Amino acid sequence: MISGNCIIAQSGGPTTAINSSACGAIFEALNQKSIEKVFGARNGIQGILNEELFDFAEEEAEELKYLKTTPSSALGSCRYRLKQDDSSDYEKIFKVFTKYNIRYFFYIGGNDSMDTVKKIHDYAQKINYEIRVIGIPKTIDNDLVGTDHCPGFGSAAKYIATSILEMSHDAHSYKSNIVTIVEVMGRNAGWLAAASALTKATDLIYLPEAAFDFKQFEKDVRRIYEEKGKVMIVVSEGIKDKDGRYVSTLESVDGHDNFGHAQLGGVGSVLEQYVKEHIEKRVKKIELNILQRCAMHYGSKTDIEEAYMVGKQAVIYGVQGKSGYMVGLKRISNDPYICETELVDIHEVANFEKKLPSHWINKEGNFVTKECIEYLAPLIMGEVVIPTENGLPRYARLKKKLIAQSE
Amino acid sequence: MISGNCIIAQSGGPTTAINSSACGAIFEALNQKSIEKVFGARNGIQGILNEELFDFAEEEAEELKYLKTTPSSALGSCRYRLKQDDSSDYEKIFKVFTKYNIRYFFYIGGNDSMDTVKKIHDYAQKINYEIRVIGIPKTIDNDLVGTDHCPGFGSAAKYIATSILEMSHDAHSYKSNIVTIVEVMGRNAGWLAAASALTKATDLIYLPEAAFDFKQFEKDVRRIYEEKGKVMIVVSEGIKDKDGRYVSTLESVDGHDNFGHAQLGGVGSVLEQYVKEHIEKRVKKIELNILQRCAMHYGSKTDIEEAYMVGKQAVIYGVQGKSGYMVGLKRISNDPYICETELVDIHEVANFEKKLPSHWINKEGNFVTKECIEYLAPLIMGEVVIPTENGLPRYARLKKKLIAQSE
Repeated sequence: MISGNCIIAQSGGPTTAINSSACGAIFEALNQKSIEKVFGARNGIQGILNEELFDFAEEEAEELKYLKTTPSSALGSCRYRLKQDDSSDYEKIFKVFTKYNIRYFFYIGGNDSMDTVKKIHDYAQKINYEIRVIGIPKTIDNDLVGTDHCPGFGSAAKYIATSILEMSHDAHSYKSNIVTIVEVMGRNAGWLAAASALTKATDLIYLPEAAFDFKQFEKDVRRIYEEKGKVMIVVSEGIKDKDGRYVSTLESVDGHDNFGHAQLGGVGSVLEQYVKEHIEKRVKKIELNILQRCAMHYGSKTDIEEAYMVGKQAVIYGVQGKSGYMVGLKRISNDPYICETELVDIHEVANFEKKLPSHWINKEGNFVTKECIEYLAPLIMGEVVIPTENGLPRYARLKKKLIAQSE
Repeated sequence: MISGNCIIAQSGGPTTAINSSACGAIFEALNQKSIEKVFGARNGIQGILNEELFDFAEEEAEELKYLKTTPSSALGSCRYRLKQDDSSDYEKIFKVFTKYNIRYFFYIGGNDSMDTVKKIHDYAQKINYEIRVIGIPKTIDNDLVGTDHCPGFGSAAKYIATSILEMSHDAHSYKSNIVTIVEVMGRNAGWLAAASALTKATDLIYLPEAAFDFKQFEKDVRRIYEEKGKVMIVVSEGIKDKDGRYVSTLESVDGHDNFGHAQLGGVGSVLEQYVKEHIEKRVKKIELNILQRCAMHYGSKTDIEEAYMVGKQAVIYGVQGKSGYMVGLKRISNDPYICETELVDIHEVANFEKKLPSHWINKEGNFVTKECIEYLAPLIMGEVVIPTENGLPRYARLKKKLIAQSE
C-alpha cells in the first residue's frame, strides 16, 4: 500500500452520471487512510498540465453529496489527447504529480480518456514513478469495450425512451396522421437509438451499424403509415448509406438536388424533408440534443448507483495496488439483474469501440432484436430521487478554489 | 338538480395536465347521484358531431386512475371551431344530446374550446334545452383570461426551467465559450419563455410582448458573453420586430439576405445564425418542441393537483346547477401559496387572450421582473410520482370502445 495524495478528474463529453462516479471516488478516497489529500483537476488532464488543482476537503460535505445526482462534468471536462511522441506533456504532468506527491490518479471518461489513462500508466512505469492509475468509464454512447455497459448510458436510454413514449401520446391526441422523427446521438454506435426499442411507441429504428437506403426507408415508413396513420421513427445522427457516407451530409437524394440546406439540421432534417415529399406533409422532427446526456431529472437509478459504484471501486482497486486498468461492469445475471465491477487491462480498452452487434439488428435493418431489448431493459430500472429547491433540482455547487501555485 | 347523462371531452393542443382534469371530472361524475352515465367524446366536439361516444364505466378503474398522471389528450382532441351563423352543427350536437339524454357537458380546453362552451351554452338557452355546460381550462400557453393561471402551464414551466438548468450544467462542462439558444412555445404570449427565469441559469429572455431588435440583441448577448463566456438565451417562438413581423420569418437581417432558409427552423435558427456571424461560432440551438407540453415525467405536483381539482369542481358546479362558466383558479395568497376555484362567466373568457403584462418585463425587454418570478414560483412546486412499468412511466390505456350508433 502506497501513501500519498490523489487526483480525480473528468474528461470527454458530459453525461448524466459522470458526477455520480466522481462522488463515489471522492468519498472513498476521503475515507482511505493511505490517501491523504484528495484533489480535483479542473477540466481533466488540462487541469494537471496547467496545475489547476483544488482540494475536495475545502468543499462542503453536503455539496459533495449532491454530486451523486448532479448531471454534467462538475469538475470540468476537456477534449485533450496526449501526444504519443512528444514527452513535454508527460514531463509537465509528472512534475505536478511529484510536486503534489500524487500517488493515485482516477480519470473518468470515455475512449479518449482511457487512452490518457493508458499513456500515463505506461509513462509512470517507464520512469519508475510509483502511482496507481485507474480509468472510470463513462459515456452515453455505450461504446467502450471491456465493460458490459457504460455508466451514463442507462440514464440517457431512460430519458430517450420516456420522451418518445410521451411524444407518442402527444401524436395520438389528434385524429390526423403524423410522422414523428426523433434524432438521437450516436455517430458510430447505435446504442442510444436502440434504447428507443424499450418503449412500444417506437416503430422504426435506424442505426449507424446498418446501411441506410432511402427506398427501403420509404417502404418501411409507408407500411406503418398505412397500417396506423402515425409513425414514430428514431434515427442515430450517424447513419450512413451503403458507401459509408453520412446521410446527414448527403447533398442529393434520388438524383434531385433538393437538400441543399438540409445538412444544417442534421439527419433528422434530411429524413423530415424526404417524408414530406414522398409520404406525408405532417412531420415533426425532434432533436433530443444535449438533453439526452444531462437530464438527471429522470435518470436511471440503476445507472446512477452503478456509476457511483465504479467510482468507489476504482479507489478501492487503486489502494489495493492495481494500476493500468479500467473498472468494468460485469453482468452476472439478467433476471434478477446483478452486476459487479471487475478490472480490465487498459490496453485492451483504449482506442477500441464497441458497436451494436449485427445479430442484435433485425434483418430489415430497421429495429433491434428481442435479445438486444433484454440486454437494455435492466439498465433503465428505477428512478433517481433528486433533492429539490424551489421546485427545481438542487444540483451541487462546488467552489473549486484553486490551490496557489507556489513553487 | 337535473338528472341525466354527462359528456366529458378534450380539445385543443395537448398538455401534460389535461388528463388530470379529465380524471378529476370523470371520478366526480361517476360519484354524483344525479349523473347516470359518464360518456367520453372521441376527439372533442367532433366526437359529438360524429356520435363517437364511449362509456367510462366500461374502462378499468385502475386505468382511469392512471389518467391523473398521463400526459396528452387521452380522450382524443380536435381543433374544430363551431360556426357562428350555421345552425347545422348545433342541430347535430343537440340531436346527440337529446338521444343520449346529456344534461351535463364538460369541455376541457383553451381559448377556442371556451368559445365552443360559450356557443353550446348559449344555443341550449335559445332552444330551451336543459343542460349544464362548464369549461375546464387547460393550456401550456397560460393565456386564458379569468383565471390566475392555467392548468398545464406549471408542468411546462417546470420542464422548461429544469431542462435549461441541466443544459447550463452541460455548457459549463468545458472551458470554451458557448452561446445556447433555447426556443420555447408561445406565438403571442411569452409565459413559457418567462418561466425560464425560474432558474438562475437563464441570462436573457425574449418575449412576443417586447419588440425584438437585432442590434439590441447583439448588445445584450455580447455583454453577457464578455462577462461570463457562456450565454443562455431563451426565446419565444413568436417574437416580433417593432413592425409586428415574426422574427422567425424575416428573410433578411441587417440588409444581408443570408437567412434564405433560416425560417425552416424557426426563430431559434435565425438567432443561431446571427450569433454565429456576429459574436461566437460555438452556438447550440435547442428546440424544446412538443416535449414541453407532454413531459409528465417531471410534471409539477401543484399543477397536476390543481388540474385534477378544476376537473372535479367543474362537475360539482354543474350539479349545483351552474352553466355557462369556466372554472377559474383564484390565488388567495402567495406565501403560503393557496389557490381556489371560482366560476368565471364564459362570455368573459372566450376569445380573449392574456399576455404577459408589460410591467412584468424589464425595461431592456430582455428579462422579466421579480414580481413576475414571484407569480411563477409556486406553480412549479412539487414533483409528481408516476407509476412505472419496466423503468418507464406507466400511462393510462383506455379502450374507448364506441357505443353502437343504433337509432
